Amino acid sequence: MTNSTIQQNFERIRSNKAFELFVVTVIITSALLVGAKTYELAPGSRSIIVWLDMLITVVFVAEITIRFIAEPDKKAFFRNGWNLFDTLVVTISLVPIDNSDLVLVARLVRVFRVLRMISIIPELRMLLASLLKALPQLGYVILLMFIIFYIYAAIGATLFESINPTLWGDIAISMLTLFRVMTFEDWTDVMYETMAVYPLSWVFYLSFIFFTAFAFLNMVIGIVVNVMHTEAEKMQQDKDPEAPEISLQEVQQQLLRLQHLLEAQGGSGSYDQASTRSGQ
Amino acid sequence: MTNSTIQQNFERIRSNKAFELFVVTVIITSALLVGAKTYELAPGSRSIIVWLDMLITVVFVAEITIRFIAEPDKKAFFRNGWNLFDTLVVTISLVPIDNSDLVLVARLVRVFRVLRMISIIPELRMLLASLLKALPQLGYVILLMFIIFYIYAAIGATLFESINPTLWGDIAISMLTLFRVMTFEDWTDVMYETMAVYPLSWVFYLSFIFFTAFAFLNMVIGIVVNVMHTEAEKMQQDKDPEAPEISLQEVQQQLLRLQHLLEAQGGSGSYDQASTRSGQ
Amino acid sequence: MTNSTIQQNFERIRSNKAFELFVVTVIITSALLVGAKTYELAPGSRSIIVWLDMLITVVFVAEITIRFIAEPDKKAFFRNGWNLFDTLVVTISLVPIDNSDLVLVARLVRVFRVLRMISIIPELRMLLASLLKALPQLGYVILLMFIIFYIYAAIGATLFESINPTLWGDIAISMLTLFRVMTFEDWTDVMYETMAVYPLSWVFYLSFIFFTAFAFLNMVIGIVVNVMHTEAEKMQQDKDPEAPEISLQEVQQQLLRLQHLLEAQGGSGSYDQASTRSGQ
Amino acid sequence: MTNSTIQQNFERIRSNKAFELFVVTVIITSALLVGAKTYELAPGSRSIIVWLDMLITVVFVAEITIRFIAEPDKKAFFRNGWNLFDTLVVTISLVPIDNSDLVLVARLVRVFRVLRMISIIPELRMLLASLLKALPQLGYVILLMFIIFYIYAAIGATLFESINPTLWGDIAISMLTLFRVMTFEDWTDVMYETMAVYPLSWVFYLSFIFFTAFAFLNMVIGIVVNVMHTEAEKMQQDKDPEAPEISLQEVQQQLLRLQHLLEAQGGSGSYDQASTRSGQ
Repeated sequence: MTNSTIQQNFERIRSNKAFELFVVTVIITSALLVGAKTYELAPGSRSIIVWLDMLITVVFVAEITIRFIAEPDKKAFFRNGWNLFDTLVVTISLVPIDNSDLVLVARLVRVFRVLRMISIIPELRMLLASLLKALPQLGYVILLMFIIFYIYAAIGATLFESINPTLWGDIAISMLTLFRVMTFEDWTDVMYETMAVYPLSWVFYLSFIFFTAFAFLNMVIGIVVNVMHTEAEKMQQDKDPEAPEISLQEVQQQLLRLQHLLEAQGGSGSYDQASTRSGQ
Repeated sequence: MTNSTIQQNFERIRSNKAFELFVVTVIITSALLVGAKTYELAPGSRSIIVWLDMLITVVFVAEITIRFIAEPDKKAFFRNGWNLFDTLVVTISLVPIDNSDLVLVARLVRVFRVLRMISIIPELRMLLASLLKALPQLGYVILLMFIIFYIYAAIGATLFESINPTLWGDIAISMLTLFRVMTFEDWTDVMYETMAVYPLSWVFYLSFIFFTAFAFLNMVIGIVVNVMHTEAEKMQQDKDPEAPEISLQEVQQQLLRLQHLLEAQGGSGSYDQASTRSGQ
Repeated sequence: MTNSTIQQNFERIRSNKAFELFVVTVIITSALLVGAKTYELAPGSRSIIVWLDMLITVVFVAEITIRFIAEPDKKAFFRNGWNLFDTLVVTISLVPIDNSDLVLVARLVRVFRVLRMISIIPELRMLLASLLKALPQLGYVILLMFIIFYIYAAIGATLFESINPTLWGDIAISMLTLFRVMTFEDWTDVMYETMAVYPLSWVFYLSFIFFTAFAFLNMVIGIVVNVMHTEAEKMQQDKDPEAPEISLQEVQQQLLRLQHLLEAQGGSGSYDQASTRSGQ
Repeated sequence: MTNSTIQQNFERIRSNKAFELFVVTVIITSALLVGAKTYELAPGSRSIIVWLDMLITVVFVAEITIRFIAEPDKKAFFRNGWNLFDTLVVTISLVPIDNSDLVLVARLVRVFRVLRMISIIPELRMLLASLLKALPQLGYVILLMFIIFYIYAAIGATLFESINPTLWGDIAISMLTLFRVMTFEDWTDVMYETMAVYPLSWVFYLSFIFFTAFAFLNMVIGIVVNVMHTEAEKMQQDKDPEAPEISLQEVQQQLLRLQHLLEAQGGSGSYDQASTRSGQ
């Protein structure tokens, strides 16, 4: 049996509905297992979970192997981000861990198996892709907000450190405190504390809230406008994808050409009539 | 008297303005009664309420019976969700309850009678229908948010359970805690507690807030864009509901046909003139 | 001097720039006075304020009298809501109050003089009018939200009254508590308290938050879509307010008529040529 | 060497990629330095920072001097707001400060150097400009919100001062308290306190929340609609910036002209035919 026929056989397995359903079931079981492990369990069910865990790992290894062999172009397999992600998660969960300190890490790796639900459902994959696609275009707004945070945090750490080092100890802690202020979480407690020393420090907080709220608002509006434009263009293309775009100008020019043709013809017609008449 | 004439008589009652007004009055009274029962009342008014309650139940039974008999197609009656809902609420409130434990349940059933206000006002019925219609299209976003919650809750329950089992005891409690974080309700208290053990745990909270806020934003924008498209299409149809949609391309093609016709005619005209002249 | 000339003289005063500026200055002074009264003041400045207060009242009475006399149509004066409001506020502040209990009321009436700033600036008047205009169209959404609040408050008052009568004592207090939950203000404290008795009561809070947030969102989107339609229509009218709306269908029909005309002419042309030739 | 050749030489330096990169590096270093100063540092690193600080000041002075000399039109240099800002920040940090009280001020001035990151990145400069451009058109909404705040603060300071002077002491403190209520930060604590004295004071808070939320919503919608109009117009212009706008009306009028031409020609054609025939 050649490599090629093996590949085709595996491709048939991969495209099999029953196989797909089986993989989805295993992924959901693995997600439920992740949840189950957070509960206090009887020793009996604990051993079942360990056993199930191993079984799921085996199935995942088998599934990725099948998908890899089924792929005609081996390089294309690793060019797909989701395949890389699946392989990574499965490979890491294969590493045997005896050290009790790393048990926690091993459990966390298994949590990321839940993300395989996104990789298996095409709609979710598309949704995540569209979310990530919106990110870069917001780059400059995020940079601007970071600068606003940085400047206010530097001022806060300079002025308020002596008042409450837990909140304003250094620039990193100050930025966390400012994020808290931005979410309006007990922000007045923070403000009243500094207002006891600097009575005008409300200007600091109110201007910060104003700037971040305004920048955030602009960001949201930016996304909305962008999404709407994309949608409007998509709708335009859906209407008549192959037709070239025609403007009213072109229609008008066509009408002008018609008019010239008519006038020329009318003129030649008159001439004709004249010649006919003169010919009599 | 035949069944059919009885049905027509009842249909006349049902369509009667006075009957409709009476039913609305009874429904509002029933809603007010539900509110009145939550106050401390003198024994005298309590007995009035019990008496009114029975009266309302009788009126509701009568009203639904009339509506049922008035309906020409009995099957269609039960195909309407609101009719089913009305019948269910009224039927349950008919069950005699002596057991004191169930008195609470009986009172809760009467609360749902207030929902009959929605079933009687067509505008509210339409509003609710449009709200429910928007739900399924958001299915995948809700699924994605659930997966985000599930993964973060699993990580939280794994890492933070020893710190505060009340907040991170198991995956269900963790998801509730994360919902609280998403609403910014005392989320810094939750964060500072875990930061005392894991100083980098702010990454957990900030990334979670970022992901859920971003997904939520996308959801909202999705609804807005969708509603606007629906509205735009509706407006388009309202303008000229029967007219077939005509594009500028069709106008252009029509102009081309005209031009060919003119050229052909102009050509035959020239030929004609030539032959006329040559004929002389 | 006739009534009419008096009216015209007063109209000239009213339209006078200096008079307008003076009234605006007095209104702003009156607003500043309202603010100044909330501070602890020395007895000296207190008497100045009382004196200024009387002066402002006199100016306001004079100004409204002038505006009333200047109005050619006396009935139209009272048909304007702002004139009524101005007259009312000024009239009430004329009532002499000696009773110390009513001093507070008198001070509150003076606060409403600040609203005269809205009545004097046309842009603010328009803004407020547009805000109020958006209100009625939201009537049904507000009614639906009220029903949601009412039902949840009735359930809350029935189930949770024994747990915390301060929060769930009767339906009115319960609705206030639910409004607090909707604003996410310490809502988890309310929830954890009832979850100690009814562990599943989180369903009550989460479903409530979901319903109200969803209804609120729909309301906001409703306004946005509405405002945009109004704006789009306004823009459409601004472009060419008198031109009748022409559809592509009409253009197409016009083209068809042209084609028929051409074909008819072309036909007669052929006939003509034939007769010409046969005539030879 | 003439002034002009010096200017051209400096212009060449300014446009040099390496120079630009060097300036950006220095600005980022200066920003990092501002952050580093908020940490507890060993005396060794402290002296490095002082040394770096001086170096950065020197570089900034050199850079602005180069930019100034490179500018052909010296007046245009100071007409640019960003150049003024850069000059101001650099000049102030040149002032030698010995007084220990002013050390804090000197540190704060250095914080504003971070803003130079905005002045050096054109995209951020454009973003900030667009944010500031949106501000004035919101002027009247902000004025209206201020009036709402002022009136509610005056009422609050009048009625609630005796209950809690920390929150309602005078009109300024009351406005701060109301801003807190608007952000939903522990607003129920404020409300429950006054409800103990005035049981109906919830009307005050709920109406305030309603008015401000509504006004704020209107503001946001105003920006969205405005941004969309601007975008739509920009898109329209991008499509065909030089083409005159043509309406369907013009096309229709052109068609009518064609029809008249055809009818006239058809008429002359008939006449022609008649004359031809009669001529036989």
